[in-house]
Amino acid sequence: RVNGDRLWDSLMDMAKIGPGIAGGNNRQTLTDSDAEGRSLFKKWCDEAGLTMGVDRMGTMFATRAGTDPDALPVYVGSHLDTQPTGGKYDGVLGVLAALEVVRTMNDLGIKTKHPVVVTNWTNEEGARFAPAMLASGVFAGVHSLDFAYNRRDPEGNLFGDELKRIGWVGDEEVGARKMHAYFEYHIEQGPILEAEDKQIGVVTHCQGLWWLEFTLTGKEAHTGSTPMNMRVNAGLAMSRILEMVQGVAVGEQPGAVGGVGQVFFSPNSRNVLPGKVVFTVDIRSPDKAKLDRMRAKIEAEAPGICDALGVGCSVEAIGHFAPVTFDEKLVTAVRSAAERLGYTHMNLISGAGHDACWAAKVAPATMVMCPCVGGLSHNEAEEISKEWATAGADVLFHAVVETAEI
Amino acid sequence: RVNGDRLWDSLMDMAKIGPGIAGGNNRQTLTDSDAEGRSLFKKWCDEAGLTMGVDRMGTMFATRAGTDPDALPVYVGSHLDTQPTGGKYDGVLGVLAALEVVRTMNDLGIKTKHPVVVTNWTNEEGARFAPAMLASGVFAGVHSLDFAYNRRDPEGNLFGDELKRIGWVGDEEVGARKMHAYFEYHIEQGPILEAEDKQIGVVTHCQGLWWLEFTLTGKEAHTGSTPMNMRVNAGLAMSRILEMVQGVAVGEQPGAVGGVGQVFFSPNSRNVLPGKVVFTVDIRSPDKAKLDRMRAKIEAEAPGICDALGVGCSVEAIGHFAPVTFDEKLVTAVRSAAERLGYTHMNLISGAGHDACWAAKVAPATMVMCPCVGGLSHNEAEEISKEWATAGADVLFHAVVETAEI
Ligand SMILES: NC(=O)NCCC(=O)O
Ligand SMILES: NC(=O)NCCC(=O)O
Repeated sequence: RVNGDRLWDSLMDMAKIGPGIAGGNNRQTLTDSDAEGRSLFKKWCDEAGLTMGVDRMGTMFATRAGTDPDALPVYVGSHLDTQPTGGKYDGVLGVLAALEVVRTMNDLGIKTKHPVVVTNWTNEEGARFAPAMLASGVFAGVHSLDFAYNRRDPEGNLFGDELKRIGWVGDEEVGARKMHAYFEYHIEQGPILEAEDKQIGVVTHCQGLWWLEFTLTGKEAHTGSTPMNMRVNAGLAMSRILEMVQGVAVGEQPGAVGGVGQVFFSPNSRNVLPGKVVFTVDIRSPDKAKLDRMRAKIEAEAPGICDALGVGCSVEAIGHFAPVTFDEKLVTAVRSAAERLGYTHMNLISGAGHDACWAAKVAPATMVMCPCVGGLSHNEAEEISKEWATAGADVLFHAVVETAEI
Repeated sequence: RVNGDRLWDSLMDMAKIGPGIAGGNNRQTLTDSDAEGRSLFKKWCDEAGLTMGVDRMGTMFATRAGTDPDALPVYVGSHLDTQPTGGKYDGVLGVLAALEVVRTMNDLGIKTKHPVVVTNWTNEEGARFAPAMLASGVFAGVHSLDFAYNRRDPEGNLFGDELKRIGWVGDEEVGARKMHAYFEYHIEQGPILEAEDKQIGVVTHCQGLWWLEFTLTGKEAHTGSTPMNMRVNAGLAMSRILEMVQGVAVGEQPGAVGGVGQVFFSPNSRNVLPGKVVFTVDIRSPDKAKLDRMRAKIEAEAPGICDALGVGCSVEAIGHFAPVTFDEKLVTAVRSAAERLGYTHMNLISGAGHDACWAAKVAPATMVMCPCVGGLSHNEAEEISKEWATAGADVLFHAVVETAEI
């Protein structure tokens, strides 16, 4: 079994970097805090005797050598970046539990045929630079390096410039590494495990996603002296589309979600009707047909809503992954480990996207999940218990060691 | 008659300061551009032989002496600050036409019993620091100086600090000046004069306003892993309130408007349901009963909309003025001037708020308006013709000189 106290202490130490305003973290990708978090992580990897490699997306690969020089490594990881008002565990637990796995292997003097590589993917959250899971997407060949480097944050900074600024452009070609297997341990970020009173989620699938970005063009005009019938109100059109998205998602229950997280009014002045409203739509389902039907409905209905108000409407798909089915053998390894360790478990479909979803394109991959309080995530109040964290790390340890072959 | 070319040249010169991105201006109050605009205006006032006084709100009073030392001055002015994406004429026309009035008086060697004071009020727009008409509001005793100094812009800067920073804290007590009369010339910012093909709006009233600020509290949560029935979606509540405000305003036709210009999602991340949404509502009517009924309806319906979603709702009134009736004698002076000069004219109710509305609390006041193309204002594309600008300035000149008594 892993050392749960040591894992928890590392989680709490990392949480000191990029503190939030309400007990969580703001350690967004490629910020100074991200750089600080990376340094601490590197120090820990060095102390554990791991060899650090960094690719041109800044993803960190810390290798514990195997006994067979020809055996491909088992990768285990997640991400250290957070949402602007994120929790202490989303992603971080997966990276530090992977570190705890190799620390425990060191303690026990375990030698494996396959190397084990603790991995910290760059920009999983996608909060600062959309889309999410950017580095793993480039790794899996879904995006080009050029596409990634040219992503902009809301202030207009380029991903490539910011990566350079914080000093984490590595020399490895992205995706050059081949994987024997990829494991990712993550908090559920949803309410099911807690509701079902299970310690371990055996993740069999991940639901698919579309991120749409709407740009509505109205007519900037005075809120006081512009009669109601002369308004070309992009804000009103946005409201109606938001309501429509809600209806589309509710109409596809069960097994679908849809919502709007980001809205920019322009010029965003109290006494000016917005000339431009940009907002994002996030729709997901484990069922590809449902997912694509939701997108089609939204894209079919939005122009009519806008037309009725004279508002211009354009929509761009800026993030997508299809539903993922994880590797059966690895899923079985996770389930058996949970059984062996006497942890309660159930099959789970991941509601969030993860680097494992892109890794699954180029390697056998799967995930382990633990509950989180109230299913809450992407919130500074995100919480888990040390016992939950430890149980998942134990399962991860067993599944990884088994797959890396003693 | 005034010199229309000189007025137009001054307008074009001022428009070079704080240029916008689409032909208009971004010369928001208390920015470096505002300081630059003030310096140019001061230079022009000096050249016209005026004596500059500045009060503790930064309002500029440039006096042309009268012949009677005991006669109270006639004030003529408006504002040089603009919206973030504002036009070249909103406010600026009124200040520079006032300057043109005294330039013309100088040209013609006109002496008046009452001094004439060209006035530039600080922060009329209220775009950076709400509420609008802030300095004239303090002048009229509606707000305290302390209240004004503690207004914050969206970045958190204090009005008082910014006024100091740009170097325009004057030494005059605000409101100490007594007025014989106050005139303000402004573009209509609405469509009526153009539609009716009239050169001059004789402004008899100004409609009243309520500015409400809503703060909705939802639950920040992951857009992917949070089931639809577990969401506490403040963005959805905002959308429904925006639609409701639209309905309330449409229901009070004719003679009412309502809309939303400013929306802030928090944390405003694509994959986070907003935990907080702050947005503003602007409702207006020339009919006080209608205006107050709209506010009451909105405040009565919003909590129910929020409750149905589990969203917390608080609302604060952060700007208000009752409908204003302008001074009958001054209104008549404006109408007679238009008649005398042979300009087509009609009575008008101002759709926008103006410093004249607060001045009217402490002095006889009125306004002159000229048309603007398509009724468009608070838009960089705001446009007027030199002929329109000149006609109104002629009327202003006649009304001011008559009131200041030769
Ligand atoms: N796990 C996680 O929150 N990933 C960010 C991408 C997503 O929104 O699903
Ligand atoms: N004239 C003008 O746009 N004033 C700003 C205050 C308002 O919104 O009416």
